[in-house]
Amino acid sequence: MHITTAHLRQIATLPTPSLLLDEVAMGANIERMDAAIAAAGIRLRPHVKTCKSEPIVERMLATHTEPRIAVSTLAEARAFAAAGYADILYAVGIVPGKFAELARLQAAGARRLAVILDSLAMADALAAWEGEPLGVFIEIDVDGGRAGIRADDPSLDVLAARVAGAPNLELRGLMTYAGAAYHCKSSAEIESLSRRERHLALAAAQRLRGAGLPCPEISVGSTPTTLAGGDFAGITEARVGVYVFFDVVMQRLGVCDYADVALGVVASVIGHRPGELVIDAGWMALSSERADTDGSGLGVVLALPDAAGDVVEAPGAMIVRGANQEHGIVARVDGEPIHTSRFPIGSRLCVLPIHACATAAQFDRYERLGAPDEPWSRFGGW
Amino acid sequence: MHITTAHLRQIATLPTPSLLLDEVAMGANIERMDAAIAAAGIRLRPHVKTCKSEPIVERMLATHTEPRIAVSTLAEARAFAAAGYADILYAVGIVPGKFAELARLQAAGARRLAVILDSLAMADALAAWEGEPLGVFIEIDVDGGRAGIRADDPSLDVLAARVAGAPNLELRGLMTYAGAAYHCKSSAEIESLSRRERHLALAAAQRLRGAGLPCPEISVGSTPTTLAGGDFAGITEARVGVYVFFDVVMQRLGVCDYADVALGVVASVIGHRPGELVIDAGWMALSSERADTDGSGLGVVLALPDAAGDVVEAPGAMIVRGANQEHGIVARVDGEPIHTSRFPIGSRLCVLPIHACATAAQFDRYERLGAPDEPWSRFGGW
Repeated sequence: MHITTAHLRQIATLPTPSLLLDEVAMGANIERMDAAIAAAGIRLRPHVKTCKSEPIVERMLATHTEPRIAVSTLAEARAFAAAGYADILYAVGIVPGKFAELARLQAAGARRLAVILDSLAMADALAAWEGEPLGVFIEIDVDGGRAGIRADDPSLDVLAARVAGAPNLELRGLMTYAGAAYHCKSSAEIESLSRRERHLALAAAQRLRGAGLPCPEISVGSTPTTLAGGDFAGITEARVGVYVFFDVVMQRLGVCDYADVALGVVASVIGHRPGELVIDAGWMALSSERADTDGSGLGVVLALPDAAGDVVEAPGAMIVRGANQEHGIVARVDGEPIHTSRFPIGSRLCVLPIHACATAAQFDRYERLGAPDEPWSRFGGW
Repeated sequence: MHITTAHLRQIATLPTPSLLLDEVAMGANIERMDAAIAAAGIRLRPHVKTCKSEPIVERMLATHTEPRIAVSTLAEARAFAAAGYADILYAVGIVPGKFAELARLQAAGARRLAVILDSLAMADALAAWEGEPLGVFIEIDVDGGRAGIRADDPSLDVLAARVAGAPNLELRGLMTYAGAAYHCKSSAEIESLSRRERHLALAAAQRLRGAGLPCPEISVGSTPTTLAGGDFAGITEARVGVYVFFDVVMQRLGVCDYADVALGVVASVIGHRPGELVIDAGWMALSSERADTDGSGLGVVLALPDAAGDVVEAPGAMIVRGANQEHGIVARVDGEPIHTSRFPIGSRLCVLPIHACATAAQFDRYERLGAPDEPWSRFGGW
């Protein structure tokens, strides 16, 4: 987020709190991921759960032919099918209550719709479902964190054979998600997890192929593990979302700098406390995602430049240490008092999000830095 | 939340995740607060930030004449002014960037609009503003938690005189918010805080009246401090919101039982892990509000009754211990494994919210238990 004196007029006229997008930073983030994807020799499948906004996904896929996307909700699938996206992977375990919606999505244009599963129960339920042919990825658990079947689970072959043998299902391959990357303490740890993710995915694919089953695709996940680089031989695509904005969690992981964070919440100073500021961005605007263990609270404050272009506090010097629904309390990280007279009541700040996916979800539009009155809408719901 | 076998058909047809409202529980909560308000001899000013839904606020005010409400955003003020509410208190510190919106609200029907402030800077800014006469409450800090001027601050009289002396402002009185109640460890602690809140508010009012200034209203806050009872002599109204739904935080404070919680998130079991369930309600549906110190995680699970009316797990036995964006991990509080076969993939659960205001904010409608296909809408934004 790079706010200059030229932007101060726009920022002064925004309602607060507002969600602000720096398209220059976003463009650099997109280029960086595109380069990593090209170096890896794989395809990009952007996860639209982070932005939920068509113009942004358009930019994420601008240099990619045959666009493919991942979604976390059927609402995302509906919106992007309506916008003309045919290759959509619903990357949350499917259940029978959602089958009817799959048929509607296919009818609406998602011709290459795929789901994920990790159980015989769902493979059997889908096989018994009388829908149009549907793609299936089997989810492989690489870090014990969430869902998936282990690459060495004896029932993996049975599960894959069940999918491959169903006339209405197409076994498209395997998918993994290395969510543990978000809790790594160093770049070396992320690299090691990324290697492990690819190793386990390839081992599982080997088992399928050894059993005479198809496994055309191996889809891996997460921004940090994809940007960590390494040997992606055998992998076909990466599902990545948060790279488009980045956030404080990514900065703490060493994946980006504060300057790369393309998203911020513009807030007004609504009060002074001894050595602290009260702002009109609470957990409703910032989300309740916290990064307390590393002292980031509910957001890292980016002070705006003054008319002369000077910035009174460096990014990271101040954080939102606590919040109510519509109140945030801003304090210095080093425990020293803020000189509150430098931040008069009514003046404005920008708060970099702890977790961009969560903060963006609290808003229905992106205000675009440098493009006043031309916001991009985003949607929510399921 | 009381789900019976008669409700199972409705619950089975809801999309998941959905926000479910039990109107019977809500009605009892409303009656209980009405009784407390009547016993205290004060007026009810419901805080609409919790529900952001007109039919619900209508029920909160059903037995009250001359309805008054509190709002936390200008979006709430706009919605309720449009619905015919005239007496609206915007209970977050006002800043000059929002003055123009105040004029629009007055023109839209908020004839008895009031704001709060705690600084000479804002009193002067409002006095210089050329708007219609506007009500002002001075915020008194009773617990050091957020905003307000202390009751013994020497500048309180000056501030009040500045407001009272401005031709376009009407000094309506004082307001307090005892947010520290949410961190109390016992009923005795809540009662003590509530007494302190009233004592400080009355002391501040005494100072104003001693200086010959008007102080017709003293507005106190929070569900737990109002339900704690006691002597409300001299207090004129209470601003309360969360009582309409209650939540796990309120249950932990001893203010309500699980059965009183009127709100829940209906989720599908989308996978099994060793001794744990994966559900399709992550932090996007539940919010990221956590209650880890008391072992409630991101929500307390209410198992649905089976067709025979039996419940396999008591409320509170299982919690959402962790979450990703659209995944929740359900575990037993006692660390024992869940018998996952009792919760087949595709079956449903209800998750009681840690903080009802935050969980409700993730949805755009309330599904009403016993009234299928007649949801009530709710709004968000600022």
